[in-house]
Amino acid sequence: MAVYTEIPDDELDAFVAAYDLGEVTSVKGIAEGVENSNYLLGTVNGQFILTLYEKRVDPADLPFFVGLMEHLAGRGLSCPLPVRDRSGKALNRLAGRPAAIVTFLPGRSLRRSKTEHCVAVGEALAQLHLAGDGFVLRRPNALSVRGWRPIYQQCSGRADSVFPGLGAEIERELDYLEEHWPRGLPQGVIHADLFPDNVFFLGGELSGLIDFYFACDDMLAYDVAICLNAWCFEPDGALNVTKARALTSGYRAVRAFRSEEIAALPLLARGSALRFLLTRLHDWLEVPAGALVVPKDPLEYYRKLRFHRGVSDASAYGLVDA
Amino acid sequence: MAVYTEIPDDELDAFVAAYDLGEVTSVKGIAEGVENSNYLLGTVNGQFILTLYEKRVDPADLPFFVGLMEHLAGRGLSCPLPVRDRSGKALNRLAGRPAAIVTFLPGRSLRRSKTEHCVAVGEALAQLHLAGDGFVLRRPNALSVRGWRPIYQQCSGRADSVFPGLGAEIERELDYLEEHWPRGLPQGVIHADLFPDNVFFLGGELSGLIDFYFACDDMLAYDVAICLNAWCFEPDGALNVTKARALTSGYRAVRAFRSEEIAALPLLARGSALRFLLTRLHDWLEVPAGALVVPKDPLEYYRKLRFHRGVSDASAYGLVDA
Repeated sequence: MAVYTEIPDDELDAFVAAYDLGEVTSVKGIAEGVENSNYLLGTVNGQFILTLYEKRVDPADLPFFVGLMEHLAGRGLSCPLPVRDRSGKALNRLAGRPAAIVTFLPGRSLRRSKTEHCVAVGEALAQLHLAGDGFVLRRPNALSVRGWRPIYQQCSGRADSVFPGLGAEIERELDYLEEHWPRGLPQGVIHADLFPDNVFFLGGELSGLIDFYFACDDMLAYDVAICLNAWCFEPDGALNVTKARALTSGYRAVRAFRSEEIAALPLLARGSALRFLLTRLHDWLEVPAGALVVPKDPLEYYRKLRFHRGVSDASAYGLVDA
Repeated sequence: MAVYTEIPDDELDAFVAAYDLGEVTSVKGIAEGVENSNYLLGTVNGQFILTLYEKRVDPADLPFFVGLMEHLAGRGLSCPLPVRDRSGKALNRLAGRPAAIVTFLPGRSLRRSKTEHCVAVGEALAQLHLAGDGFVLRRPNALSVRGWRPIYQQCSGRADSVFPGLGAEIERELDYLEEHWPRGLPQGVIHADLFPDNVFFLGGELSGLIDFYFACDDMLAYDVAICLNAWCFEPDGALNVTKARALTSGYRAVRAFRSEEIAALPLLARGSALRFLLTRLHDWLEVPAGALVVPKDPLEYYRKLRFHRGVSDASAYGLVDA
């Protein structure tokens, strides 16, 4: 759940007046996104999303995020389109924070996905990867393999308080993945956080993707691995191989996998599981007293990590090199 | 901030299908209301508010609340109108809870009110009091003078941990108010919680009132006292007598005060301050670990209580018996 910055009435009016949106008719803080404050903004011209970028987002990254949404929407991907003000700017300031208005995307995220949804997610992810081609800005993935150990070091002393032996296991995993992390796979813009919260469906069809605030440049197949972890496990912790096959077959129907991507998938899935284990562990141990955010369970990703470590090849995900 | 019940996808679709609202296009948890889960529900026919009544609301009270909104809207008051399903029911169940859909009210609540807003609030409160006439259901005010001591007794042992001497002062206040609480003043339906969060403005005009979940039968002038406390104090704790005069003059332009109501106003304001001091104190001391709700400062109302105790007559609020 997002935090909500209180926006002074006059500041909001002055902010919106710089756009061609007409008078504000409503503004409601919504439970969407974790890093930023999001508001559903109603004006006489319709509904929009107003985002205030809170301190966990580096302002230097904002031109990448906003530019990427504009690039992807211009290539036909269904995602929020940043609205430019009369002077042509899509990024402004409100209540002391960087702020942007983007178009409202119809649809709703799913609480429980089915196999057909996983097909659609795979297709949309591949469409995003193709649409990202030609985007001129660059943003290295700070949460890839080189970024994991520094996160772990911030909370290593308390890892075993979450689960006995967790610290040593993470260290072995870091050693292994730092040595064996794949290289030379196709790169491009990845979403890097395409969890069910960030995919909208309408009438059974995928209607759009949101929340591009982890997007970056990295291996495209790593994004597939993130989605396998986010979409294809059952609540009891078991991989649903039917969903995994659906997701990867949806993807490859739009963008073909290279053989080396298929071969690397178990390792990428293992790395992706470690990445979310580490950031969740960090948030779990660091959550301040009185925080409005309930941290997510790090052990969910510990179990996924162990699963992927036992996988010998991508056929475990229903994916074979055709 | 409201809690958010997770609504299973299929249940939501089945729930909405019972209404003539068309397909759901979006559903977003919103930060509106404290006691319930509120969602902005988009359908092909427009925007609505979906409310799930959480455990702090007694289901036996729901026909009163829903019936009252229907009654008031039917009398021309701008407030949410409950939407009836095809079988004529305005109250149903969703995700294991009582639930209702009401119309979306344009406008937004103010962070900082000005004098002209207080005039409008006074007018709207009086309109509500007149429009409530003829409503057939009854709901005694559980949070009037007889209800205060039981709330205090739940947290009396820890009151002094919030402010030294607070417990003894509350007990003296309870003794005094129980003995001197006004009787025989005009009664009717009161909102009982008309804080700035619950009043919408649009283009400088008051556009509607929301959140009728404390509404009940009580003295009409007690509702005025609640609004004086909620709207007419500055952040530094001082009464803004210009705002108080504006609020009461707005009110009396629509509904005349009786002399005995004017005479009772300082005592009613004192009682209203104690009521919010007590419920806030209770919530402050009882807030569970990991709660998503930040309790409101009880001492804000302690300071208001002390102010009203020093008031000899309603001229302190800019109100004289004309």
